[in-house]
Amino acid sequence: MQRRHEPPPPPPDSGEESGRRMIRQPLPSQAGPSIRVMTEMLPVGTEGKGQMVDLTADIGRVLQKLGMKEGNVTIFCPGSTAAITTIEFEPGLKKDLPQAMEHIAPSKGHRYHHDDTWHDGNGHSHVRASIMGPSLVVPFNQGRLILGTWQQVVLVDWDNRSRRRELVLQFIGEVA
Amino acid sequence: MQRRHEPPPPPPDSGEESGRRMIRQPLPSQAGPSIRVMTEMLPVGTEGKGQMVDLTADIGRVLQKLGMKEGNVTIFCPGSTAAITTIEFEPGLKKDLPQAMEHIAPSKGHRYHHDDTWHDGNGHSHVRASIMGPSLVVPFNQGRLILGTWQQVVLVDWDNRSRRRELVLQFIGEVA
Amino acid sequence: MQRRHEPPPPPPDSGEESGRRMIRQPLPSQAGPSIRVMTEMLPVGTEGKGQMVDLTADIGRVLQKLGMKEGNVTIFCPGSTAAITTIEFEPGLKKDLPQAMEHIAPSKGHRYHHDDTWHDGNGHSHVRASIMGPSLVVPFNQGRLILGTWQQVVLVDWDNRSRRRELVLQFIGEVA
Repeated sequence: MQRRHEPPPPPPDSGEESGRRMIRQPLPSQAGPSIRVMTEMLPVGTEGKGQMVDLTADIGRVLQKLGMKEGNVTIFCPGSTAAITTIEFEPGLKKDLPQAMEHIAPSKGHRYHHDDTWHDGNGHSHVRASIMGPSLVVPFNQGRLILGTWQQVVLVDWDNRSRRRELVLQFIGEVA
Repeated sequence: MQRRHEPPPPPPDSGEESGRRMIRQPLPSQAGPSIRVMTEMLPVGTEGKGQMVDLTADIGRVLQKLGMKEGNVTIFCPGSTAAITTIEFEPGLKKDLPQAMEHIAPSKGHRYHHDDTWHDGNGHSHVRASIMGPSLVVPFNQGRLILGTWQQVVLVDWDNRSRRRELVLQFIGEVA
Repeated sequence: MQRRHEPPPPPPDSGEESGRRMIRQPLPSQAGPSIRVMTEMLPVGTEGKGQMVDLTADIGRVLQKLGMKEGNVTIFCPGSTAAITTIEFEPGLKKDLPQAMEHIAPSKGHRYHHDDTWHDGNGHSHVRASIMGPSLVVPFNQGRLILGTWQQVVLVDWDNRSRRRELVLQFIGEVA
């Protein structure tokens, strides 16, 4: 089976082909583009138990709607049992990542102090979410997210039951 | 014992109750709100050894003082033996997270190359801090951090002794 | 061997020596500084296999060239087999971090579902990159990155072969 490995995203307006490439020159004039902050909520339903949800297309659609050209988006999960990261979103890794996290915070056969308090059996969910982190910042340029070809933005829901998440997508950048 | 699981943060000015909800419409006019960057240092004393310090109230107080309405805050730890993340800040998880990190970078019974160089016995501290990361970005809206009900922003100090940290809180967003 | 442990970065214009210190007062006037977004690509060649590349000097050079005074830089790796974090960049930890990640996602003796699909033998690379994350945000002030004395920004390339990476450095902040 053939595949190409993540080629760098083509910077179409780049003048140089090697060395460091300036994509955009600073424009310090008073008539420069204005910077805006735009915050949206993205509801996502999950099955929990390490389920991954690919958010890439949704984020791209919101970006296009907002019309921002250059800046970044913070993807944030309010909640302490899920994480945001990137991964190659393919069936194998959907199993491999949860299996690896079993080595750090096993879902069975380990007694968590958290469960002594709450008895909801998701101590491992909290630990995994804290290690991976609830927040990710992805830059965009020319109105498109700068991601590798095989790289998707995902929510990984570590909770031990189905959940409805209200993710935050916050864009900061230039509007034309 | 009863508890509610993280309800989504209420978006008070949202027009739609289901589907994706725009919290704020872009205002591309020249008379739009202005964006500012504000950087503060937050001194925090810790005991090290995996101690967690809840930063949430401090961050909220600074945000209120600055009067920013919409944007995000980067919480950054200058130093290579501590990490920033979110967690449900309760006594059980304060023990569970350090115990889980023992599976990755044990504090005892493992010889670190770092300690061969420096002999300060904190090789595990560096490894844990690098895996978890020194930086977190949290969005805010209507002057309030958007966090889950059971989610706190914490410094986890992995060093093997007490430390005085000077954390950076950097806010980027709109002022009225 | 003597060494000092990460002292806090000196805030030269700070008025108070203890307690929380405001580095910069908000300037909500209409004639305030303007905020810009600047995006650059930084090409980096690596050997893979957990090799770390210190990016700190390169980021500092770009920051100086752009002339931004206060804001932050997002360092992002397009690609799903490498991570961005900070570490004390010294020979011992260059070995210790990869050894620790063997406890989570071993490079040998474990069968990954990812490799069943692609047969490129880098399942562990993907898992490690997703856990550590592809993105880091570092604040700067007075034209300098705010980092600990022994803290460097690094790319850790977890792939199982040499790669050419095109990292994104995106600066958001005030230009004079």
